[in-house]
Amino acid sequence: MQNSNIKQGGCLMYTVDLNCDLGESFGNYKCGMDEEVIPYISSANVACGFHASDPVVMAKTVALAKESGVCIGAHPGYPDLAGFGRRNLDASPEEVKAMVQYQVGALHAFCTAQRVRLCHVKPHGAMYNMACRDQALAEAVCEGIFEVDPGLILLGPAGSQLLNAAEAFGLTCAREVFADRAYEEDGSLVPRSRPGAMITDEDEAITRVIRMVKDKKVTAVTGRDIEVTADSVCVHGDGPKALAFVVKIREALKIENIQVVPFGKLDG
Amino acid sequence: MQNSNIKQGGCLMYTVDLNCDLGESFGNYKCGMDEEVIPYISSANVACGFHASDPVVMAKTVALAKESGVCIGAHPGYPDLAGFGRRNLDASPEEVKAMVQYQVGALHAFCTAQRVRLCHVKPHGAMYNMACRDQALAEAVCEGIFEVDPGLILLGPAGSQLLNAAEAFGLTCAREVFADRAYEEDGSLVPRSRPGAMITDEDEAITRVIRMVKDKKVTAVTGRDIEVTADSVCVHGDGPKALAFVVKIREALKIENIQVVPFGKLDG
Amino acid sequence: MQNSNIKQGGCLMYTVDLNCDLGESFGNYKCGMDEEVIPYISSANVACGFHASDPVVMAKTVALAKESGVCIGAHPGYPDLAGFGRRNLDASPEEVKAMVQYQVGALHAFCTAQRVRLCHVKPHGAMYNMACRDQALAEAVCEGIFEVDPGLILLGPAGSQLLNAAEAFGLTCAREVFADRAYEEDGSLVPRSRPGAMITDEDEAITRVIRMVKDKKVTAVTGRDIEVTADSVCVHGDGPKALAFVVKIREALKIENIQVVPFGKLDG
Amino acid sequence: MQNSNIKQGGCLMYTVDLNCDLGESFGNYKCGMDEEVIPYISSANVACGFHASDPVVMAKTVALAKESGVCIGAHPGYPDLAGFGRRNLDASPEEVKAMVQYQVGALHAFCTAQRVRLCHVKPHGAMYNMACRDQALAEAVCEGIFEVDPGLILLGPAGSQLLNAAEAFGLTCAREVFADRAYEEDGSLVPRSRPGAMITDEDEAITRVIRMVKDKKVTAVTGRDIEVTADSVCVHGDGPKALAFVVKIREALKIENIQVVPFGKLDG
Repeated sequence: MQNSNIKQGGCLMYTVDLNCDLGESFGNYKCGMDEEVIPYISSANVACGFHASDPVVMAKTVALAKESGVCIGAHPGYPDLAGFGRRNLDASPEEVKAMVQYQVGALHAFCTAQRVRLCHVKPHGAMYNMACRDQALAEAVCEGIFEVDPGLILLGPAGSQLLNAAEAFGLTCAREVFADRAYEEDGSLVPRSRPGAMITDEDEAITRVIRMVKDKKVTAVTGRDIEVTADSVCVHGDGPKALAFVVKIREALKIENIQVVPFGKLDG
Repeated sequence: MQNSNIKQGGCLMYTVDLNCDLGESFGNYKCGMDEEVIPYISSANVACGFHASDPVVMAKTVALAKESGVCIGAHPGYPDLAGFGRRNLDASPEEVKAMVQYQVGALHAFCTAQRVRLCHVKPHGAMYNMACRDQALAEAVCEGIFEVDPGLILLGPAGSQLLNAAEAFGLTCAREVFADRAYEEDGSLVPRSRPGAMITDEDEAITRVIRMVKDKKVTAVTGRDIEVTADSVCVHGDGPKALAFVVKIREALKIENIQVVPFGKLDG
Repeated sequence: MQNSNIKQGGCLMYTVDLNCDLGESFGNYKCGMDEEVIPYISSANVACGFHASDPVVMAKTVALAKESGVCIGAHPGYPDLAGFGRRNLDASPEEVKAMVQYQVGALHAFCTAQRVRLCHVKPHGAMYNMACRDQALAEAVCEGIFEVDPGLILLGPAGSQLLNAAEAFGLTCAREVFADRAYEEDGSLVPRSRPGAMITDEDEAITRVIRMVKDKKVTAVTGRDIEVTADSVCVHGDGPKALAFVVKIREALKIENIQVVPFGKLDG
Repeated sequence: MQNSNIKQGGCLMYTVDLNCDLGESFGNYKCGMDEEVIPYISSANVACGFHASDPVVMAKTVALAKESGVCIGAHPGYPDLAGFGRRNLDASPEEVKAMVQYQVGALHAFCTAQRVRLCHVKPHGAMYNMACRDQALAEAVCEGIFEVDPGLILLGPAGSQLLNAAEAFGLTCAREVFADRAYEEDGSLVPRSRPGAMITDEDEAITRVIRMVKDKKVTAVTGRDIEVTADSVCVHGDGPKALAFVVKIREALKIENIQVVPFGKLDG
């Protein structure tokens, strides 16, 4: 997928997607501010019942996304509700592939039932992190997706094993960037455990996003500028502060004439 | 669906389906004799991870069913692994509908991945029993199936709320009979808690099945003959004794010139 | 247990316990306002990991209760996290007894580790409701508790099968009343499905509580006064409105010279 | 704990414990041959509901162990039923400590209810392996046990972080050896992934066990003899072949005049 910069009336129009994890409530447990954040995003990564959510929540989240016109993606994770799918689990590639197919299929059913398209897949938490680094897991995820629906877009960070595997399987890829994270010179994220990993200043974070979209550049943690492609910006809606930041980034994008368009609707 | 009695060379050829629950292993826990029973059946009800099974088991079960040429059905149940989905759970129709869509979708993904068709749905255990009696639950199950794929066949007992709801939604129905259970005059099963509920003599059970298929009649617990339609006979493969019975019934059907054909391949 | 009305300096001093469900968070999911409500209550019913909570939450909740000086009770429920233990589950008495022992034991370990006493047990949700009506389940719960620790107090509604069974097993009982629920003439709660089941006016609810404590009387839904014993009043802390009501009732009790004392510290 | 070699009538009497994982069935899923293996062992590691078992199975397993006179230990694991607790899970020390306390407490309740003593704790699977290597996890496990009951014996491999931590906390330790595993020169097990890790010849395995008990020596994978202390030998009862080996080893011990005595009954 190419971050499309559309020409409109002779004037260059930048576009980007804003993706956010949604549908993470579970039974009696409410989590996130789905209704509040959805007007500001263009793609939703919908939890599939393993690390969060349940069938009723999934049905409601698909309905909300459809009503709001955002693109729907599956957000499969490890079967670890207590750890919210954030704890590394030593599952085999065979297990991970089957977990992905199971969860993508489950969400797909709700989309079919509500006559809306499932656009993309973005693994969650520890599955995402492990598949970004581990080639066998990355291939397991992508093979799982490809076999179920080769038209699904894989959303992940550029340069990761995950994106490499997706390309190898012929899946369309959307590259996401993070507003609040520092980058190494090779384009990977600075681990959270390292100082300087987080961009805590909101204005700086927004300036970086705009530069990533418009100039395809970001300053790495070393101070050197690197190339970056931002098909989508990952944002969060799991609290009032996170929500306020989404509103702010959305406004900044508008001022900069950057349209927020779901990558699921861009040409590959 | 009509129990098809095919004319072949001027000679009337009876057919019936044999359905069996498969894929009930879970992680390290092996359950059932899937490999042994599958050559004798024509339709498999595949557990979907709520009352039994897990994603890896589902992938393997779909592969086994495909290889063996049996028709694949989803066997959704209550989320009660500890109780094997056999304990009544006071879930709302909304919850049951979402549970069904989730599980049907999950199994559907494995079928798509392995390029084999999902043919039918048969609810499991307490969900089956409750939906056979409760109209709201029956409608929840059938609406859930219909929205995901109106081509799926609902497998259940004739005269139940479940079959009535399936017909109301326009789903094709396959009516199953039980070799080892006694019937009331209204065609419902004699509750297990009542004396005479089980047909313990194997030869009697087989004779009853043959009569149900050929003559569309069975003797109710009262002694009176009633009409019955047997699109499928429910058999079990969860132990050596159950397996031996399947082998025996299969042989008896052959002798009686009754072909075992998956209802998923019959005309509706 | 007798609702103790202590004589202090010649003046009759009324006492009552306020019990509240605590520790219902789970992993990443926060639930309830434990820190805010705990200063106003005297006994905490701590979730044990089946319908809510997890080991880390339990450890923290016991620490919070210890620090706040409230009495700690186990709050065992059905293994139904998705349904918050509120859905009836057709578990056998043997299963329910084992569930209770498991959960009481688990919470007991955290109490022992933190050198604080486990005082009581109050079943949760559907287990509470079913054991209040069903003698076999009530006996299963009470036998389970008695075998683990006959010194544990059973907290439940007067006149229920649960309290009857507790008395039969020789467990000390504490009788709880509900501020926001209407009563039948026989002392049982008016089912929520019936009109007039809820006391929605806060002032009326508080007036009723005070009368139940001081006069041991409440007006049944029929208009007739009935006898009632209130060892404890069940309050909620699962939202700002619930919390505000607890603060209000606590103040009203103070004005009425009714001391809030954990029943676990009263003489049996 | 010292592998006690008891003098009896002037004649040196060797003793050793045989420990085996029991109670790993779950709901409808039967696992292991508990009834068959229990006459041959002296200590049972009882699963606690996280990686295997459920409350009813736990109650029955405690009853079986009591009846058979074997010592009972808790066998806590990761909350990963689908992976049987064998998959590494990146849980924090705080989480692991709470998991251990929860599971030990749950099993303790069944022991108390049945008036039998809980003797030891042996972590299961991935928790065992990780705590043997990782000091922080080892300390979390041992602190968890110590706080609940400082009289519990920790069963683990000599020289591991787990045993070191147990000694640091003042827990009595029992050192287990493996009949079917090769050892490195430092006394650690040769990883399963390496050639020569398993002792596949049964007679060789038994000869090694006898030498470990009598001479406190075993030949490492390098060919050099190393010192070893065998308070207990870990055996398996999860299949007919495993059972046959237990019977065989038990007979060999008898011939060698080595008594099988639970370490829980030896002096520390």
